[in-house]
Amino acid sequence: MNVGNRHYRSIWPLAAADGRRAVGIVDQTRLPIEFVTVELETWTQVRTAIASMQVRGAPLIGVAAAYGLALAMREDDSDAALARGFADLLAARPTAVNLRWALERMQTLLRQTPRGQRAERAWAEAGRIAEEDVACNRAIGGHGAALIAGMQRSVRRTLNILTHCNAGWIATVDFGTALSAIYQAFDAGIDLHVWVDETRPRNQGLLTAWELGAHGVPHTLIVDNAGGHLMRQGAVDLVLVGADRVTRHGDVCNKIGTYLKAVAARDNNVPFYAAVPSTTIDWTIADADAEIEIELRGADEVRSVAGRGADGHAATVAIADARTPVLNPAFDVTPARLLSGIITERGVAAANALANLFSESKRACARATI
Amino acid sequence: MNVGNRHYRSIWPLAAADGRRAVGIVDQTRLPIEFVTVELETWTQVRTAIASMQVRGAPLIGVAAAYGLALAMREDDSDAALARGFADLLAARPTAVNLRWALERMQTLLRQTPRGQRAERAWAEAGRIAEEDVACNRAIGGHGAALIAGMQRSVRRTLNILTHCNAGWIATVDFGTALSAIYQAFDAGIDLHVWVDETRPRNQGLLTAWELGAHGVPHTLIVDNAGGHLMRQGAVDLVLVGADRVTRHGDVCNKIGTYLKAVAARDNNVPFYAAVPSTTIDWTIADADAEIEIELRGADEVRSVAGRGADGHAATVAIADARTPVLNPAFDVTPARLLSGIITERGVAAANALANLFSESKRACARATI
Repeated sequence: MNVGNRHYRSIWPLAAADGRRAVGIVDQTRLPIEFVTVELETWTQVRTAIASMQVRGAPLIGVAAAYGLALAMREDDSDAALARGFADLLAARPTAVNLRWALERMQTLLRQTPRGQRAERAWAEAGRIAEEDVACNRAIGGHGAALIAGMQRSVRRTLNILTHCNAGWIATVDFGTALSAIYQAFDAGIDLHVWVDETRPRNQGLLTAWELGAHGVPHTLIVDNAGGHLMRQGAVDLVLVGADRVTRHGDVCNKIGTYLKAVAARDNNVPFYAAVPSTTIDWTIADADAEIEIELRGADEVRSVAGRGADGHAATVAIADARTPVLNPAFDVTPARLLSGIITERGVAAANALANLFSESKRACARATI
Repeated sequence: MNVGNRHYRSIWPLAAADGRRAVGIVDQTRLPIEFVTVELETWTQVRTAIASMQVRGAPLIGVAAAYGLALAMREDDSDAALARGFADLLAARPTAVNLRWALERMQTLLRQTPRGQRAERAWAEAGRIAEEDVACNRAIGGHGAALIAGMQRSVRRTLNILTHCNAGWIATVDFGTALSAIYQAFDAGIDLHVWVDETRPRNQGLLTAWELGAHGVPHTLIVDNAGGHLMRQGAVDLVLVGADRVTRHGDVCNKIGTYLKAVAARDNNVPFYAAVPSTTIDWTIADADAEIEIELRGADEVRSVAGRGADGHAATVAIADARTPVLNPAFDVTPARLLSGIITERGVAAANALANLFSESKRACARATI
């Protein structure tokens, strides 16, 4: 998508004439205050960028990890280095499944590849994963836009969509998942407006507001507390979110607070959809609550807030005493029963009928259909 | 309650030997970063303190407004000044009913009082309203503590209570409403722990954490998004909040986000109670959604966050661009059907059976029973 007049993806390969390789990223910890790009030259820098959320969003961290493993192979293409890179990158964030999916795909390929060829094949494969993500998100957005268009035709006024966290182009390589649907519907002339949840503690809603603003999509920022009230007032026609992991039964693990919006949507008969690439579906998991590790992040994310200070520069304020006890779970689980459906690159399915779309139960992005 | 080793109320009268009068308050916009007291010498300063939330909490703004009208009478005790003070103080915040209740009580008295005596009688009456609030909150806390004790006996481990916003001593004259129950239960030795919602955008949860910490009550600060997840994990045994206005049918208007916790509590069979003085019950209102004006506050409350900067001083950071569109409703309505009960100074009632406790349908604090 465009930033100013220039097209960006959220991640891009850099190959110097002298053979050096690096990965360019947008430092998302500095958005929306500053738009800063960073070059990651080593796999450990990639790991740190994932853990610190300089790159974030389930699809993007999968692609970043693939590039990370490719950079690791340039340093040392031994089986031991492969095993270590795989394990350490996987541990950078525990909840999203795309990270594991991308690393397993890379590992499978690299184990079959002789040393000496691993670095180049890894680099090429990471690039393929990135391109597949873009194609996948374009397809998700097409199905989602059709859903939005149908709803708008039935309400015959501006369709109000509420979204939580950031499932936009910077959470993926390009287009986004939930926001891909919104961008495509908007570009097709559908009359819509987006309620943007702030999404404490990391305020990814500000990334969403920044993205939507840059693309010209009408939107309004609200605190996380406000969505239920808006639903009761009839001001929300659709809730549309992304996800970090979806079980084979359609339970959706997504940013903390998603469940609260889902349960309120049900109480108000507001349709609630998650938009995900099939790489986000974890077919190995049946019981989300028992089997998905919910990442607990640091207390300082809650005790302090980053923004722009009075002098115009990035600044952080402490809002609570450093001794205040804090619990900071990063994700929650929305049971399939609360979802109206899940939007994938192959179309829309009832949450508990995902297998109908993916009868082969593959977790790869379904290239055949996009 | 105590701050450090000194006992404070949230508001107190100041009478100088030379006859000057003022009202002391704790400036709640500077808590928990700084504990600063302020003296309000004119009724317009009181009005500004209410509107800016230097004083906040439905019971406290009622008492503050009563003192405000008393100060107005010292400047000018004419009928015109009474009418103007009444109207302007009432307009300072639109949602909580205690403000109107206290002003109407003062107005009724003052209309029956000859000029020349109004200033002194108003001052005394404001003091009586403050004392009644303290007695009322003590009684609410006693009934609430009994409820908490019963629940803790049945779970036989630490009872986990979730609260939203601040219904503590600084939201009232002393003790608080929901927190009065928690303080009294804690003081009686009940094993409990409080999950404290941050309560964006004004972060009144930080006031709650500050209060609970000062009193030694075990607590953990969480973002507003986290409560549903904790309920799904079985980590919440009771939700206990205050309210700004309760309809005669038991619909509860409280800080934005309360409804989301109530609907999640219902989904998880977690009991949900509001604790209120009867002055918060608006017997004139049947349909909360149609008849209660939900205050819309400024966009800057959402676009920026106040705290302590790196230099240790109070500071504010902008988290969103000043052009980002914002909607900032301050309250929502939780329908009576989602409440397990309402705790008042006369005991606990089903939300839709409040009239059984207040058969005279008086809105005054029920002095006879406390």
